[in-house]
Amino acid sequence: MGSAKTLRVGLAGLGNVGLGVVKILEQQSRHLEARTGVAINLTAIAARSRTKDRGYDLARYAWCDRPVDLAARSDVDVVVEVMGGQDGAALDLIKAALQQGKPVVTANKALLAHHGVDLARQAEAAGVPLAYEAAVAGGIPIIKMLREGLAANDIDSLYGIMNGTCNYILTTMEDTGRSFSSVLVDAQKLGYAEADPTLDVGGGDSGHKLALLTALAFGCRPDFSSLSLDGIERLTAEDIAISGELGYRIKLIGQSARLDDGRILQMVSPCLVPKTAPLAHVSHVLNGIFVRGNFVGPSFIEGRGAGEGPTASAIVADIIDIARGRTGSVFGMKVDDLGAPPAASRDDWTGEFYIRLVVDDRPGVIADIAPILRDHEISIASLIQRGCSAEEPVSVIILTHKTSGKSIRQAAERIAELGTVREEPLTLPILSL
Amino acid sequence: MGSAKTLRVGLAGLGNVGLGVVKILEQQSRHLEARTGVAINLTAIAARSRTKDRGYDLARYAWCDRPVDLAARSDVDVVVEVMGGQDGAALDLIKAALQQGKPVVTANKALLAHHGVDLARQAEAAGVPLAYEAAVAGGIPIIKMLREGLAANDIDSLYGIMNGTCNYILTTMEDTGRSFSSVLVDAQKLGYAEADPTLDVGGGDSGHKLALLTALAFGCRPDFSSLSLDGIERLTAEDIAISGELGYRIKLIGQSARLDDGRILQMVSPCLVPKTAPLAHVSHVLNGIFVRGNFVGPSFIEGRGAGEGPTASAIVADIIDIARGRTGSVFGMKVDDLGAPPAASRDDWTGEFYIRLVVDDRPGVIADIAPILRDHEISIASLIQRGCSAEEPVSVIILTHKTSGKSIRQAAERIAELGTVREEPLTLPILSL
Repeated sequence: MGSAKTLRVGLAGLGNVGLGVVKILEQQSRHLEARTGVAINLTAIAARSRTKDRGYDLARYAWCDRPVDLAARSDVDVVVEVMGGQDGAALDLIKAALQQGKPVVTANKALLAHHGVDLARQAEAAGVPLAYEAAVAGGIPIIKMLREGLAANDIDSLYGIMNGTCNYILTTMEDTGRSFSSVLVDAQKLGYAEADPTLDVGGGDSGHKLALLTALAFGCRPDFSSLSLDGIERLTAEDIAISGELGYRIKLIGQSARLDDGRILQMVSPCLVPKTAPLAHVSHVLNGIFVRGNFVGPSFIEGRGAGEGPTASAIVADIIDIARGRTGSVFGMKVDDLGAPPAASRDDWTGEFYIRLVVDDRPGVIADIAPILRDHEISIASLIQRGCSAEEPVSVIILTHKTSGKSIRQAAERIAELGTVREEPLTLPILSL
Repeated sequence: MGSAKTLRVGLAGLGNVGLGVVKILEQQSRHLEARTGVAINLTAIAARSRTKDRGYDLARYAWCDRPVDLAARSDVDVVVEVMGGQDGAALDLIKAALQQGKPVVTANKALLAHHGVDLARQAEAAGVPLAYEAAVAGGIPIIKMLREGLAANDIDSLYGIMNGTCNYILTTMEDTGRSFSSVLVDAQKLGYAEADPTLDVGGGDSGHKLALLTALAFGCRPDFSSLSLDGIERLTAEDIAISGELGYRIKLIGQSARLDDGRILQMVSPCLVPKTAPLAHVSHVLNGIFVRGNFVGPSFIEGRGAGEGPTASAIVADIIDIARGRTGSVFGMKVDDLGAPPAASRDDWTGEFYIRLVVDDRPGVIADIAPILRDHEISIASLIQRGCSAEEPVSVIILTHKTSGKSIRQAAERIAELGTVREEPLTLPILSL
């Protein structure tokens, strides 16, 4: 630190979140000093374009063309990285800052999900914090809750809505009855979805976040590669409408659990959620996450999962922790103490499923399907056929009794081979809460 | 600390929560050491009776007949106080421990609401933490959320369900249609309510918690004496049934807000909550609290608000913080920097109200009441009269449009003087969410 009572911040990235950080550090300056005893001053900024009009006067801050140069500046005590990107400039900057022995605050879930262990080791060796409250669920302090608030507990499982873009799309599909692709286009216009939406709608972004939460919850290394990942692209207005009639909402759920055999299951998938469950009421861009501990029981936290204000709020919470000298291990334990338990997969998930088949409307279709389900010991709880047409394929919806992901996968593979089945069956887990 | 790697705990109080702390420290011993790098060992215990059968072997721990003696023991590095009581032995112990320069962890909201400023000053002078995550909302890390997670924000308001006993009673009254007093007796048998339930059902316990949350949220001294306090004792099965028909649930809500003129309003009161609001679905012994920050927006946290496991989980979270060296100011800022803004009262609350009058069923009753409401500029949104009897008084329910607590109080005082009105009018704020 510059003096005993000053913390000088270098900021890389001037998108929404970066500008939000600038605004909080300026507007809440006295508030922050009262709460930390430290004057927290932004001193230097790096971003792609110096000349772009951001509607905000940034002339008082030193400018770096190359983000990595922030790390070595003598007027920077802590580096904030909100550029994004899982490699490249963001990774170079974080490594350089840790090498300089400077604390790092980042919102970069993709980078941490892929390089978290190496960076945690580097931070540990340097004896400085690498903080990332903003990387998961925006303004909600879920990282702090897992690493500190519930740290006395063995966590059995956690699950929740971790991506505001998908939740906005699904909520809007339900409200309007419109198709995925049509709502996506609107979401892009409104700035709720990226021009390339793959990372959000494909489930990858939720997966990055889930990998970090899983590491904290279960005391193991983040393991993004073992995640079972499904996105929301295949969901139709009909899926949402029929689920609704049956008492469910479809939500993109990230969930992880420690199985009885010690393996860790990490899964991102659209799931049917009973409308009576709190998660069913987490709408639009909100995020909501349940954590179940052996002493605390189920705990739930909800709030804005993205956006300038909430994400910047979390970034500055990390800066406050650093100013207060409250630091700790990146994943709640020393890197060498983190476990690396074997991974389970979607095959190991047990529960009820929603299956949607698109079939030619011919007599005997159900007679072809039923034996396959029987062979895999899948019991039908209900079956609905919508539409009736000799020309066009129709949808058959099946809700199953409790079964395994493996049985569902195997049955779906055999069903897909039937001549009357037009596309790969859609299979969605049903959360029982 | 005993050595660089050991933290020795002295525990005062062996009720449910105390036993819960013993169990966590024993069962999670390796878990805790992995997460803190410190062996956390319970060494000494004090409680009222040494011989009482608690169904748990405590023989390995040193015993103190007087809690205060824990403070001076050379084998105690941190003192945990879970005896309860706002003065007396608990206060003596905490003062003695701080005097010895030992960190204190307590679940004692009553004590902190009354003596928090003095104790915070003493802790500050001694340079040791006085931690109390368990004092509010059991296992939910709401203290940490306010003091750290949302610390970048100016908080506009917070509100929630902070007392599991009252919430259990209200939920059961709704589920069964039974009276307050009948459900209370059952709750006492089940251990959900104390033999003397005054502190819970009268709102005092929620008030103690609210005073602490208000101090953290608004950066001011806890001020229990300025709280407006109403309990749930006067609520009838009819209040709950009619509210339900109108789309509301009645919940005991603690709320605080900074008014435009800078005054702080703190109020505990049964309120009507729209069934569409998340708080309406916080049932039985759960607690749930909303916090609204200027950057993060509304954030919600929910979980078990009481009981052995959840409360002990929060106590041990504080011990973990201490073991990790993560300490901070008791109310988030230095005591001398805490504000002492003037207090507003229930008179200053603005919104819609539910009014229940018990009147003789005679023509002209409404004609007497209506001018009084008009005189206080209270506009009637709806009026319901239930029952019709020449012998017995009947209930008149009025929902108002937006008005002030002051207008409601003044109108209620005049209405109470009417000859046809049998008891003091019940007036409940309606939360608009």
